[in-house]
Amino acid sequence: MIIVMRPGASQEQVEAVQQRLAALGFAGHPIYGDHQVVIGAIGAKPLPDLEVLEELPGVERVVRVMHPFKLVSREVNPAGSVVMVGDVPVGGRQLAVIAGPCAVESEAQLMETVTAVRAAGANLLRGGAFKPRSSPYSFQGMGEEALKLLAAAREKTGLPVVTEVLAVRQVELVAQYADALQIGARNMQNFELLREVGRQSKPVLLKRGMSATIEEWLMAAEYIVNEGNQNVILVERGIRTFEPATRSTLDVSAVVVARGLTHLPILVDPSHAAGKWQWVSGLARAGVAAGADGLMVEVHPHPEQALSDGPQALTPPVFTELMRSLAPLAQAVGRSLPQRHPVAAAV
Amino acid sequence: MIIVMRPGASQEQVEAVQQRLAALGFAGHPIYGDHQVVIGAIGAKPLPDLEVLEELPGVERVVRVMHPFKLVSREVNPAGSVVMVGDVPVGGRQLAVIAGPCAVESEAQLMETVTAVRAAGANLLRGGAFKPRSSPYSFQGMGEEALKLLAAAREKTGLPVVTEVLAVRQVELVAQYADALQIGARNMQNFELLREVGRQSKPVLLKRGMSATIEEWLMAAEYIVNEGNQNVILVERGIRTFEPATRSTLDVSAVVVARGLTHLPILVDPSHAAGKWQWVSGLARAGVAAGADGLMVEVHPHPEQALSDGPQALTPPVFTELMRSLAPLAQAVGRSLPQRHPVAAAV
Amino acid sequence: MIIVMRPGASQEQVEAVQQRLAALGFAGHPIYGDHQVVIGAIGAKPLPDLEVLEELPGVERVVRVMHPFKLVSREVNPAGSVVMVGDVPVGGRQLAVIAGPCAVESEAQLMETVTAVRAAGANLLRGGAFKPRSSPYSFQGMGEEALKLLAAAREKTGLPVVTEVLAVRQVELVAQYADALQIGARNMQNFELLREVGRQSKPVLLKRGMSATIEEWLMAAEYIVNEGNQNVILVERGIRTFEPATRSTLDVSAVVVARGLTHLPILVDPSHAAGKWQWVSGLARAGVAAGADGLMVEVHPHPEQALSDGPQALTPPVFTELMRSLAPLAQAVGRSLPQRHPVAAAV
Amino acid sequence: MIIVMRPGASQEQVEAVQQRLAALGFAGHPIYGDHQVVIGAIGAKPLPDLEVLEELPGVERVVRVMHPFKLVSREVNPAGSVVMVGDVPVGGRQLAVIAGPCAVESEAQLMETVTAVRAAGANLLRGGAFKPRSSPYSFQGMGEEALKLLAAAREKTGLPVVTEVLAVRQVELVAQYADALQIGARNMQNFELLREVGRQSKPVLLKRGMSATIEEWLMAAEYIVNEGNQNVILVERGIRTFEPATRSTLDVSAVVVARGLTHLPILVDPSHAAGKWQWVSGLARAGVAAGADGLMVEVHPHPEQALSDGPQALTPPVFTELMRSLAPLAQAVGRSLPQRHPVAAAV
Repeated sequence: MIIVMRPGASQEQVEAVQQRLAALGFAGHPIYGDHQVVIGAIGAKPLPDLEVLEELPGVERVVRVMHPFKLVSREVNPAGSVVMVGDVPVGGRQLAVIAGPCAVESEAQLMETVTAVRAAGANLLRGGAFKPRSSPYSFQGMGEEALKLLAAAREKTGLPVVTEVLAVRQVELVAQYADALQIGARNMQNFELLREVGRQSKPVLLKRGMSATIEEWLMAAEYIVNEGNQNVILVERGIRTFEPATRSTLDVSAVVVARGLTHLPILVDPSHAAGKWQWVSGLARAGVAAGADGLMVEVHPHPEQALSDGPQALTPPVFTELMRSLAPLAQAVGRSLPQRHPVAAAV
Repeated sequence: MIIVMRPGASQEQVEAVQQRLAALGFAGHPIYGDHQVVIGAIGAKPLPDLEVLEELPGVERVVRVMHPFKLVSREVNPAGSVVMVGDVPVGGRQLAVIAGPCAVESEAQLMETVTAVRAAGANLLRGGAFKPRSSPYSFQGMGEEALKLLAAAREKTGLPVVTEVLAVRQVELVAQYADALQIGARNMQNFELLREVGRQSKPVLLKRGMSATIEEWLMAAEYIVNEGNQNVILVERGIRTFEPATRSTLDVSAVVVARGLTHLPILVDPSHAAGKWQWVSGLARAGVAAGADGLMVEVHPHPEQALSDGPQALTPPVFTELMRSLAPLAQAVGRSLPQRHPVAAAV
Repeated sequence: MIIVMRPGASQEQVEAVQQRLAALGFAGHPIYGDHQVVIGAIGAKPLPDLEVLEELPGVERVVRVMHPFKLVSREVNPAGSVVMVGDVPVGGRQLAVIAGPCAVESEAQLMETVTAVRAAGANLLRGGAFKPRSSPYSFQGMGEEALKLLAAAREKTGLPVVTEVLAVRQVELVAQYADALQIGARNMQNFELLREVGRQSKPVLLKRGMSATIEEWLMAAEYIVNEGNQNVILVERGIRTFEPATRSTLDVSAVVVARGLTHLPILVDPSHAAGKWQWVSGLARAGVAAGADGLMVEVHPHPEQALSDGPQALTPPVFTELMRSLAPLAQAVGRSLPQRHPVAAAV
Repeated sequence: MIIVMRPGASQEQVEAVQQRLAALGFAGHPIYGDHQVVIGAIGAKPLPDLEVLEELPGVERVVRVMHPFKLVSREVNPAGSVVMVGDVPVGGRQLAVIAGPCAVESEAQLMETVTAVRAAGANLLRGGAFKPRSSPYSFQGMGEEALKLLAAAREKTGLPVVTEVLAVRQVELVAQYADALQIGARNMQNFELLREVGRQSKPVLLKRGMSATIEEWLMAAEYIVNEGNQNVILVERGIRTFEPATRSTLDVSAVVVARGLTHLPILVDPSHAAGKWQWVSGLARAGVAAGADGLMVEVHPHPEQALSDGPQALTPPVFTELMRSLAPLAQAVGRSLPQRHPVAAAV
């Protein structure tokens, strides 16, 4: 932490800052310049909220030097962590491919989807049971009924299940059925929910908030890990910008940057970023090339009848084509795709 | 709702859209242009998620014509609603002035603050008991102990209390002590929490999310009102933009625009927007001039010792000076300030 | 400037940084912490581009401590500068009110407008002769013919004229007719144009770029002043954000923040920010309350026939009403409006 | 174009809109709904600025249905255009790789760079002669001297030269030396400059503005093509968002989306987006995977001594490694890299 004094700050003010630092367990080292004094603050951790030092007389600015996260920091595991979702490793050489409908709508819809995505090479199943919707008048998900259908689909296909949890009181229920709990973008800083999923043992997919900085995203993960659950998987799903063409702007830089900061696996969700299925495959390829550990893609057998997010869902044939195009691409960046299960062998 | 067909869409495709509309309870009226066909969809409400029509062959785009909110719409109460917080009206001619510390830290800190802000003319008290913090290592609030101190402060001063609720399981507890529940920016789309505060009777202050559009903000309010609680107060507190100088960018346009769309009262929180106390008063004045129904301001007797958000807290003398400057300004825009309680008479 | 070394950087690396600093004319003062070394760099000015030090081995980050602008810095003239546009002072106690059509379209349109805005109390006339348009197929302005009409309007009414200059080769021509040259948002970092208007003597209105930080805006002003022209007036006109309701988001914080950083006068343009005339008056009032030195407002006698930006133009009666509402507001913030010229006395 | 009337608009108002449309050469087709009337406007082109219709009584909103660009529209050349820069095709199967220093600093620096990048497989040379800098005190480029060095480098290596032009009066000079003229992000809406480069015959690289929508970017290209120069190459270089980690946010979606809208080639500049060399290669790979027609990369033999943008420059070995990693990736997306020229054969 560095405290920058205003030009003209008095020696008394410099000393007052040093005394305050000492009280907080820091040693303050002033540097006297021609124009200004800066004070290096060295020592204590974890970091208290030193911004209040800006309120001391003569202080212009406090500059933080170290990142605020610790448990999720790359230094903790420089080789990178592999998180197991059911029997599927996320974070290793093999890419994770999570596919399925935005929302579970019926047994038929779910089974048709899971059969198709498994055949094409997906190794994890997604499907919403509780849906966060901007409007209270929109379809809100089938709830526990959907969880049961997801569990049944896993029985038939072997694909572990990822599904979103919206509230503290759903955590126990969802964890009974699912192999991994997803925290959606809107809940990235729902700290009560973060703590709750941190206190149970199923792995957690943490989507980046629509306007969350990379640092805030990692701090949200830190909340989960700090409760004892180290199995956190980050998911970049697009950020909110001025560009109206796409639903969100997929921030592939976030994959590249976060990779250097954290040991946690990082996936990309091209579906929510694009908002239109025509653009999903291009973004999926960009995500893999940027170094993502896998993808999370929405697939629906009849998007024009979907109860939510139809415009961004791939049909099974388009998803299959995407997977085909990903095979050489994955190889080109030193990764591999999960095994495909041609339909004859499926289910 | 208008469905824009692609140039070259076939008559069969146009008819398929019309059939689909009919199945959804809409009448479709095609307009044949030289270049393109557009179809006006008229009828059903509430609006289903018609975006899926974009998935039908030949459809280029679906354009929504009506706003998606209903209960919070200005048409419901063109004169504008007044929400009572304790005995204080919010939304009428008199401005509401909510002041107090970011977080309750001790009885002494709270009482020193409330005495000062009441003397200066604040008519509502704010103070955090449960604090949402980006870092799990930061001060998280005193919890119920703070709620008791807030209630005690109300007893002594008569100022109704506003405090934040972070989780569904805190709602009942907080509602026992507080006169209004605040939903923070990070929870604006925590739909479970919105529903929960909608099911109890205390008024709700709904802060705008950091990257929420005005429409999403109103839809979040719609969630609360849709559960039966009509006493919602909107709070603009700055949005996230590229500008690094301020913590957020106070969007005064949102006050002006939302005023035309909804009957709910709208406050401005200049403290979180600014992030620095030096800028708070200027933003507070801008908010009132833009037509806000009041302000929510952080005040701390010793900001350099504050456990959270010290840099943006006004000291009591600065707050008093702000209130003085607001008196003629309020009058200039046809409003008035709450009565001041000079210290001799206070507590 | 502070150089933050990576954890584990070697003593050789620290010394290499110090040697490099010395070669650039800086003295480097290392502070040895438990975890990291930071080096304070003190001395030389003007600042070279020290970011390249980040490329030296062992360096993590370079943190700039001082602002990069000098000539426009508030310290140069703590009392604040007053810039004369014709005989109208901008930056003093009296607010400047620049009004007129987006584009000059005809003598009748211009004279009808200027008569009305002068009567209502505007003391400066705006009107576009050269228009920057997103589409090459849109109306591009009447060019020199418009400049002549503006000059004639000044003759008749006494209002000095402000008009935009789009290109280096227009500067001389526009400066012959206008009393102040405007640099539009799209040209805020057209450095050749900034230099050119800096080399002539007419005052310059510098609009903030749609995604320019406050610091970049001030650096653009620094370009002009650095060429010898100190008569620069800043204009906040809204920034680009994710919010689709308004054309831009008026950043009133920028007025508050820039006021503390620079001695130059600062105006607000509520018309371009709003994009809709219904919202212009509210934003204008917010701008004045935030401390702006004046306003720049688009007025058109028949907005529905305007060749550009009709939706955001006020009609003369609405502008007159705005001016009436501003009088007590200006007084409330210690300012005054220009004198009104009731129509009987006008022209 | 669709005109949405307010609920309750009168029949007279609907007819007034139709009359106005007729006067503008449009046929208006009203659709009467239960709640609202909408009017489809069909006919005339090019599109006038119909937004002014929002000013007619009873009109709520005008919705544009067609894109505003024509000459750059994909429909003009569905197969996609190939633009020749010297003898290098941009837009075909083979990727274009433009590499070189941010700014030309000396003959030695330039020749060392060009030799290295050619050996690694770059087929076009970039280097700044005129530099747009946020600060007037930063290095502004060597001007014509740099142009001569670039031309000499082309003589020796055969690599065509791309360099930026900042001002109308530089166009002729730069066009004498360079094989393609670059318009920088800050000048994307410098319409005078766009027209000027549209009136000469050298191809133009048009960088996307930092806060330009994809549509505005294409309209800027339309300005150039409308003057007669069809040889325009688009360059995505990152947009400005709230994320502070990277200099800009590379918008790979823009490649995917613009590909569907325009026939022009599209490149990606990962260097300016990243701002840090460590992140450039990941972003370059993402750009190619997203479908870009090539890359524009900054390379400097001694980044720590660079006079501008050193932190984002790759060293020759890192660039060589990037090119190696791109070979299988390009193949995976159906593209190829330019031929490499091992150093023994170079120059």
